[in-house]
Amino acid sequence: MGPGPINADPRVLRALSAPLIGQYDPAMTQYMHETMQLYREVFATDNTATLLIDGTSRAGIEAVLVSLIKPGERVLVPIFGRFGHLLREIAERCGGEVHVIECPWGEVFQPEQIETAIRKVKPRLLALVQGDTSTTMCQPLAEIGAICRREDVLFYTDATASLAGNSLKTDEWGLDAVTAGLQKCLAGPSGSSPLTLSSRAVEVVHGRRHVEAGISSGRDRLTDPGARIRSNYFDLSMILDYWGELRLNHHTEATSMLYGARECARLLINEGMENAIDRHALHGQAMVEGLKGLGLEMFGDQAHRMHNVSAAVIPAGLEGEGLRRSMLEDFGIEIGTSFGPLHGKVWRFGVMGYNARRDTVLTTLAALEQTLRRGGISVVGGSGVGTALDFYSDQALRGHA
Amino acid sequence: MGPGPINADPRVLRALSAPLIGQYDPAMTQYMHETMQLYREVFATDNTATLLIDGTSRAGIEAVLVSLIKPGERVLVPIFGRFGHLLREIAERCGGEVHVIECPWGEVFQPEQIETAIRKVKPRLLALVQGDTSTTMCQPLAEIGAICRREDVLFYTDATASLAGNSLKTDEWGLDAVTAGLQKCLAGPSGSSPLTLSSRAVEVVHGRRHVEAGISSGRDRLTDPGARIRSNYFDLSMILDYWGELRLNHHTEATSMLYGARECARLLINEGMENAIDRHALHGQAMVEGLKGLGLEMFGDQAHRMHNVSAAVIPAGLEGEGLRRSMLEDFGIEIGTSFGPLHGKVWRFGVMGYNARRDTVLTTLAALEQTLRRGGISVVGGSGVGTALDFYSDQALRGHA
Repeated sequence: MGPGPINADPRVLRALSAPLIGQYDPAMTQYMHETMQLYREVFATDNTATLLIDGTSRAGIEAVLVSLIKPGERVLVPIFGRFGHLLREIAERCGGEVHVIECPWGEVFQPEQIETAIRKVKPRLLALVQGDTSTTMCQPLAEIGAICRREDVLFYTDATASLAGNSLKTDEWGLDAVTAGLQKCLAGPSGSSPLTLSSRAVEVVHGRRHVEAGISSGRDRLTDPGARIRSNYFDLSMILDYWGELRLNHHTEATSMLYGARECARLLINEGMENAIDRHALHGQAMVEGLKGLGLEMFGDQAHRMHNVSAAVIPAGLEGEGLRRSMLEDFGIEIGTSFGPLHGKVWRFGVMGYNARRDTVLTTLAALEQTLRRGGISVVGGSGVGTALDFYSDQALRGHA
Repeated sequence: MGPGPINADPRVLRALSAPLIGQYDPAMTQYMHETMQLYREVFATDNTATLLIDGTSRAGIEAVLVSLIKPGERVLVPIFGRFGHLLREIAERCGGEVHVIECPWGEVFQPEQIETAIRKVKPRLLALVQGDTSTTMCQPLAEIGAICRREDVLFYTDATASLAGNSLKTDEWGLDAVTAGLQKCLAGPSGSSPLTLSSRAVEVVHGRRHVEAGISSGRDRLTDPGARIRSNYFDLSMILDYWGELRLNHHTEATSMLYGARECARLLINEGMENAIDRHALHGQAMVEGLKGLGLEMFGDQAHRMHNVSAAVIPAGLEGEGLRRSMLEDFGIEIGTSFGPLHGKVWRFGVMGYNARRDTVLTTLAALEQTLRRGGISVVGGSGVGTALDFYSDQALRGHA
């Protein structure tokens, strides 16, 4: 019940253990096509270029940044938590000239702030986290795509922590690139990164296309060597050829992780994306109500909290790591702390994926009550679970549960 | 029964579906330590720096090259097949000044040729494939480590296709970096890349250490920004901190693939590395005897063939892809063709990992006999299976099976 990775859905675990098939077996090609189509629905997009990167969510981020940023190009990264710093860091390593704006941890940006920065910096790319688990904030994106189109800026968002737990509309919002991971609201294991690219982004990537020596026929040589993508593994022009009609050999697809990623998407599409988001909103809010019922203060702008993760301020005088250890050792429940300025200051509670359920919320609150009490904090018996149950009843009356 | 990926061992598939645990759960830390120790045995090394890269075998290659090569440094890549071209290509993208020597496909290098090239080029790094599946050749490495030490060159080898099917002695041979994948003789799925680094290599990597913004305390800043590793995801200095005592956050470990990788190594260590190599030698040679029994001519220098993959020349007048399709559609058996100059010229037969068995060899030969005959090739009934069975009997008499 921390900020992820989470317990995977048992159906996803089962999918992982399916027998392997060859990477050019027609059945495998069919699985790859199905996976692409399923993720188009997850990302709410018609983008042909929708596929998996074989690596963790961070691999997806690096694939987009190294493929879209030519060394020397300007990149704007608005930072509202740890993962904004990560985008800056990766963009710098890709050779980008990175400009940042920052807002206090626990807040998000207004579209006007981003627009002003874009006009000043004139970047080629805006790289913006949607949900930053380090602060639990969810940056509104709906108005930013239009700004980017007006200013001719590519718009990339990292939706690792937010996708399927919060609304994300790739096409409607004008997102040019989105990446994610399985280990949060997608209810799977870390190790595969779903990704989608708009036709604008594909055009940039194709402009840097360079076919690998050893499988090249000698054609397809890039005329501008400076444009060559600095990574082979993350070269999206080659990865698009591998997933596309050419089926040109690149890496050997991680078959088991593909099975898992496909099952994650299949379960979400069966449930319905809107239903999945509502489920995260319901159980995420129940957790918050319960935490407040226990007398804890929530961290950050609650109007912009991600549905699926919340942070409670550690009460003064309590050793937060000791409580986390007790929760794990006595109850088998993992909760998180945070990074940088928030390390040791907050506990983070994830309610995501397979763990976005009533029983997990109530069990966590019950265990937390016991652990707080033994940590010397005065707690009214049943105050957490009771408040959460009241919230569930109230929502049921309103037809939300 | 192609050059990989292969059918995974069912015990590895089962391991993949184990429930997830948090990345800082003590149980997870213990799994990571066990995995490191198991791979030390697989790589025949005492290197502390032995771990997994979360990606396919190609990810391991790129992690080593981008972490060891500073832009502008000289790299020597002896090329004897497609995967030598891949090492060149990745090293170039890392900014290395890459020099190559080539030998005809189907042959390997003599140590003197490599020594002469090292003296001429004076590279910082020698990057050399051990087993190149494109040609089936296995480059002898035992004498090259000593040359590299004498000339103060780091020695990296890509053992993706060869490890556990052919002898590899990291410490004894003076290898500074070795990478692999699970999808060949390790009997697992693609998607995790075991890797080991000597203390010489670790020193180079640590010299380029740079802690990520957002989790950094402000110390640990690199004084020479040109030395900064160009990738975050493949930055071995950070990945070593993640797997090491510091346990500093980097990516979110791909838990399911870790379980799989651990099981692959556990099965090999239980069997004994020498026994596993002997098993690949036995069944690989039985396949070759059977192919010759069917009247096929083998491709390449048979004295330097990898135990686990062999290539037969496609008989004149036969459409090789049609036969491959029949093998798959009629018998459910996948065999390979090759790349570049060998595309459509040879079929490749893999006898590796879980598929390095008597029944898989004999079934493949039986199916191939039928398919060749229907392709219009004159074949003596039983000539493939019979020759292989004779070979097995002969080996059993000699106590090898």
